[in-house]
Amino acid sequence: MKQPVRYGRKFRSMDIYIRGASATKFGELWGESPRRLARTAMGEAMVEAEVERDQVEALFVGNMLSGMLGGQEHLGAFFSDELELFCPAFKIEGACASGGLAVHAAIQSLRAGQYGTVAVLGIEKMTDHKPEDVAGALMGAGSDAERMAGATFPGLYALLARAHMEAFGTTEEDLATVAVQNHYHGTLNPKAQYRIELTVEKVMKSAYVADPLKLYDCSPITDGAAALILSGRPPAGRNGHPGVRIIASEVATDTLGVSSRTSLTELKATSKAAQNAYRVAGIAPKEIRVAEVHDCFTIAQLLAMEDLGFFPKGEAVRAIHEGLTRVGSNGLVINPSGGLKACGHPVGATGVKQIVEIADQLRGRCDKRQVEGITYGLTHNVGGSGATAVVHILAAESLPRKSGR
Amino acid sequence: MKQPVRYGRKFRSMDIYIRGASATKFGELWGESPRRLARTAMGEAMVEAEVERDQVEALFVGNMLSGMLGGQEHLGAFFSDELELFCPAFKIEGACASGGLAVHAAIQSLRAGQYGTVAVLGIEKMTDHKPEDVAGALMGAGSDAERMAGATFPGLYALLARAHMEAFGTTEEDLATVAVQNHYHGTLNPKAQYRIELTVEKVMKSAYVADPLKLYDCSPITDGAAALILSGRPPAGRNGHPGVRIIASEVATDTLGVSSRTSLTELKATSKAAQNAYRVAGIAPKEIRVAEVHDCFTIAQLLAMEDLGFFPKGEAVRAIHEGLTRVGSNGLVINPSGGLKACGHPVGATGVKQIVEIADQLRGRCDKRQVEGITYGLTHNVGGSGATAVVHILAAESLPRKSGR
Repeated sequence: MKQPVRYGRKFRSMDIYIRGASATKFGELWGESPRRLARTAMGEAMVEAEVERDQVEALFVGNMLSGMLGGQEHLGAFFSDELELFCPAFKIEGACASGGLAVHAAIQSLRAGQYGTVAVLGIEKMTDHKPEDVAGALMGAGSDAERMAGATFPGLYALLARAHMEAFGTTEEDLATVAVQNHYHGTLNPKAQYRIELTVEKVMKSAYVADPLKLYDCSPITDGAAALILSGRPPAGRNGHPGVRIIASEVATDTLGVSSRTSLTELKATSKAAQNAYRVAGIAPKEIRVAEVHDCFTIAQLLAMEDLGFFPKGEAVRAIHEGLTRVGSNGLVINPSGGLKACGHPVGATGVKQIVEIADQLRGRCDKRQVEGITYGLTHNVGGSGATAVVHILAAESLPRKSGR
Repeated sequence: MKQPVRYGRKFRSMDIYIRGASATKFGELWGESPRRLARTAMGEAMVEAEVERDQVEALFVGNMLSGMLGGQEHLGAFFSDELELFCPAFKIEGACASGGLAVHAAIQSLRAGQYGTVAVLGIEKMTDHKPEDVAGALMGAGSDAERMAGATFPGLYALLARAHMEAFGTTEEDLATVAVQNHYHGTLNPKAQYRIELTVEKVMKSAYVADPLKLYDCSPITDGAAALILSGRPPAGRNGHPGVRIIASEVATDTLGVSSRTSLTELKATSKAAQNAYRVAGIAPKEIRVAEVHDCFTIAQLLAMEDLGFFPKGEAVRAIHEGLTRVGSNGLVINPSGGLKACGHPVGATGVKQIVEIADQLRGRCDKRQVEGITYGLTHNVGGSGATAVVHILAAESLPRKSGR
């Protein structure tokens, strides 16, 4: 009678330093190529990190669609070459969570001591392709049954919205307030795809995409890139600006298809990744005062706000109505960048851009959309209809540890 | 005047334990689906490792073509679901090096202490698609210039072959001997795609694919899967069989396109990854007595044998002529499985299957193709025409360290 060996997860604390962080403008960038987007974002991150090309020891690329839409399936080497890094290079793919997964993989390589300084690039170029091709390719994140049945992502999230409405009395107007708030935040972000304010009336009058989700409940098709330079130890000398650490990086999965799940009102991958992240970071959800969450549809933001442990089930929408999640409040500000909804959703870039936004928030660089007095921030990136979730927790650090200043 | 901070690579020794390793039969597997291939390989690896599903803490999938040919781009979650693991899941893509890169990423997550036991799945299903679609998709590993110029992989490797012939006097007959030896090894491997012996005459009479490469110089289109269960520490109790460790895992990149390189007779990514791997393992090339190298074309095997430091430039072919690389010799046996050429090349599976073969060799499980008296083995996986190279070094371990037996 053999006793199987049990290797348990070690929930050890971790410290990864963000030395550089940058994102391009998001939007329909007809004049930009993938290589130019990559060079812009990575160039800015490297300048901030004061890192030369030969100091970048590995490159992790988050991308979903380069193969299906661009015919390129050697994307790590492609960008290693384009950025003239010529270092070990990896493409990490997990549908719309590709960016978050790339950050997670990069962090493990640093914690392993395999590399000392690494670059992460999240990138997607979507607008150069026919919308029906993009929509078809995005369903590459779904289950075979969903794909063969002709399901679309708006359709799957509409199911989740309907279940939430039935369970908690959520209304279409409630969903609309998510869009209104995120679009307000978008007006404060010069890099956002949409910088126009919405009203509940305008959202309610927009065309149905998949009942109850309307046009303004959906995130757009976007081009963009985001880049990070990460290190396993704090830089010895700094520009005087406070540093930011990633103190938890957790991934969880659920069934690929929505139909196999026991609940339609919770994305369990989100709950699990979040619980593990709080455990590693050693903090409680209430200590988070700013978060970028995966609002590919308005209902997704409500689910995230609840599944991340910020609000009890069915109560997230009240916080939005009360203005507690809006820039300027003393509550928990959600998606100050405008989120996927207004800042845009270049799928492979999204998980990386969320970390750029929170890093900028923790460094006080966000101007009109700055959240004041924050110590911790969280990012939440989802693949498909919730099969993959990635949660990162970031912490501000007022002074370098080693400098003694 | 700022002094940039320099984070150097730490070439620390490492020990990752292979607890389970298995591969499916390779070939034109018309009756097998990706999920069945995955279940077969992973099921066998888990049984060997004595690991239950809930003990697998993360899944790393190596695959190249599921998006372009199968429309599925959420492959980590897909196989997490199909294998009922529901653990953090990642797809790692790097063209034909996807499998090797997935092993490398899995190893970093173990060394980081993020996970205690992880699974790696390399898989590709190629024969269900039209050959011209597969050929087109494979060029997704090449540079834009090569793709737009209509270059094919046989064409690019033909360039490398021609350069080698001009530099070292290599002949088409020399290339043919590589195919002959690998096909002989294939006859000894029950899981090989081709189990037919070739002769130099038969290779020479086969049709040109890209002069000087002929049909029998090229690896085939193959279906197959390979799986590993890896752990950061040795199991406390074992079945009495010797364990195998991975003692180096190194990745290097070169330019994506062949035309940007300074040498056509060396794949520099291979040389660099190998040098780093020897350094981490603390051994010299001459201590390796069995290796699985990336022979997508016969010329690729000669390049690998030289770039890995086994033979001086231009001299690998002599070792083949002298029988020193053949199963049964006391030299350095190359590709005992039959290699990509005869065992087959399901692109995302190849890098994982190479490790399965060397692990089996080090455990003395290879029956007719067993290499005797070996302590170390090496695997070498290439993406594209040499833009990515992955080198792993494995070591036999006669007894578990902790058991005291």
